[in-house]
Amino acid sequence: MRKGPTVIDVVKPTRVATLSQQVADELQARIVAGDWPVGHKIPTEPELVQALGVSRSTVREAVRSLIHVRMLEARPGDGTYVCSASPLKFPMQDRISHASLREAIEVRAMLQQRIARLAAARCTPADAERLRELLTTAGPQLANAQSYDECAPAIMAFNTAISDLTGNRLLVELDNHVTTATVAKPPFPDHWSPEIGARVLGRLTDLIDAICAGNPDEAEQSMRRAQREILPLVADTGDAQM
Amino acid sequence: MRKGPTVIDVVKPTRVATLSQQVADELQARIVAGDWPVGHKIPTEPELVQALGVSRSTVREAVRSLIHVRMLEARPGDGTYVCSASPLKFPMQDRISHASLREAIEVRAMLQQRIARLAAARCTPADAERLRELLTTAGPQLANAQSYDECAPAIMAFNTAISDLTGNRLLVELDNHVTTATVAKPPFPDHWSPEIGARVLGRLTDLIDAICAGNPDEAEQSMRRAQREILPLVADTGDAQM
Repeated sequence: MRKGPTVIDVVKPTRVATLSQQVADELQARIVAGDWPVGHKIPTEPELVQALGVSRSTVREAVRSLIHVRMLEARPGDGTYVCSASPLKFPMQDRISHASLREAIEVRAMLQQRIARLAAARCTPADAERLRELLTTAGPQLANAQSYDECAPAIMAFNTAISDLTGNRLLVELDNHVTTATVAKPPFPDHWSPEIGARVLGRLTDLIDAICAGNPDEAEQSMRRAQREILPLVADTGDAQM
Repeated sequence: MRKGPTVIDVVKPTRVATLSQQVADELQARIVAGDWPVGHKIPTEPELVQALGVSRSTVREAVRSLIHVRMLEARPGDGTYVCSASPLKFPMQDRISHASLREAIEVRAMLQQRIARLAAARCTPADAERLRELLTTAGPQLANAQSYDECAPAIMAFNTAISDLTGNRLLVELDNHVTTATVAKPPFPDHWSPEIGARVLGRLTDLIDAICAGNPDEAEQSMRRAQREILPLVADTGDAQM
C-alpha cells in the first residue's frame, strides 16, 4: 500500500478538499482501479491509519462516505467489504427506484437500441462469427427455459457479447445499472413461458443478423421491434414509448 | 426541523445502516425534497446534534458523506451549503469526466434523440403553440449570437421546452447531467459563428415542426440530422455514431 503523502495527489483543484475527502477519493480510486475488487475485505481502521498517515477519525469519515454511496459495506464483527466498483451504481439504482416503471422502461429501451446501433456500426467479421456461435450454443437454452431465472444466463451472455462491440464503456455501464434497477422493479419480470423464450430467440436472431450485416439502422429497428413485442409480455409497460 | 426519532424511519430494510448512514440518508432526503434548496446554508453541527438527537461525530460523518457526493459543500469559516439537489449529478459528471469525448457525445446524442421522439409522441396542441411562440421569440437571438455564451440561454430555453414534453423526468435528469458534463469537456464547444447559429435555427425549426406534427420517427431523425450536421462544427466528434 502507498504511504501517507500520496493522499495529497488526489486533491481536486476545483474545491478545497478536507483530509477525509482526500482519503475517501484515494480509497475510491483504488476500488475503481480494481486494486480492491468487489468482495474484497479492505484493511482495518488501524491499518489504514498507519498506511495513510492520517488520524483514525479521518479514516472513519472517509470509509463512511464510501458506505453512503454503497461502494463499501460494513459487516459488524467482521470488517468492511467492497460491494461495488462503480461510484455511479448505487446513485443510479437509487434514482431509478424513485422513477416510474414507464420512465425506467423508456430509458432502458433507449440504451439497448443505441447499443444495437453501435454494435452494428463496429462489428468486425471475427465479432460476427463469435455472435453466430453464441446463437448456436446459448439459443436453445433460451428457447427451452421454463422460467426467467433459467434463461437469465443466456440473456446475459447475449447482452454482454453485443454490448462489448459498442466500444462505449460509458453506455454499457449506464445500461448495466439501468437494466439491473429496472428488472428489480415490480412487476418486472412478472412471469415467463417457453413461448416468450421462443419469441425472444426469434427477435434476437433478427438482431444478430442486422449486427453481423453491419447495418446500424436495421439493428436499432430490430431491437425496437423486439422490445415492442416482448416487453409487454413480461411487464406492464403502460404507455411507454419504445 | 423534525425530531430525533424520525431518523429511524429512513432505515433501508436491505442493509444494516449505522446511525451516521441514517442521518446522511435523512439529510439527503431533505435536500432532494427541496426543504433545503441549492444555495441554502444547512444548520450548524450543534444545531443538527440538537435537532436529530445524535452525537456530534455522527453528524460530522453524515455531513462528510454528502460532501463526498458533492450535494453539500463546506465553506471554511462560513458554513455548509447545498450545492446539488441530485445525488446522481456528481457521480454522473465524475464518470463522464473519465469517459472519452466520443463516448460522451454518443450518449448525449442518444438522450436527445429519445427526448425528441418522446416530445413528439406527447405534444398536445397547446404545447405545439408554445413551442412555435418560442421559435418566434428566441429564434432570432440564436441566429444572431456572436459566441456560444451569447446563444446559450436560447439553446437552454429550447432544450427545456422540448424536454418538458417528454413526461420522463429520469430521462431529462440524465440528459441534464450528461449535457453539462459533455459541454465542459474540451474541446466542446470550441468555437462558434453566426453561420453555425443560423444552421442550428434551421435544424431546430425542422425538429419543432416534427414535434408539433406529433411524428416521433421524424422528430428523432430530425434531431439526428441536426447532430450530424452541427456537432462536428463545434467539437471533434471523431468516429462517434449519432
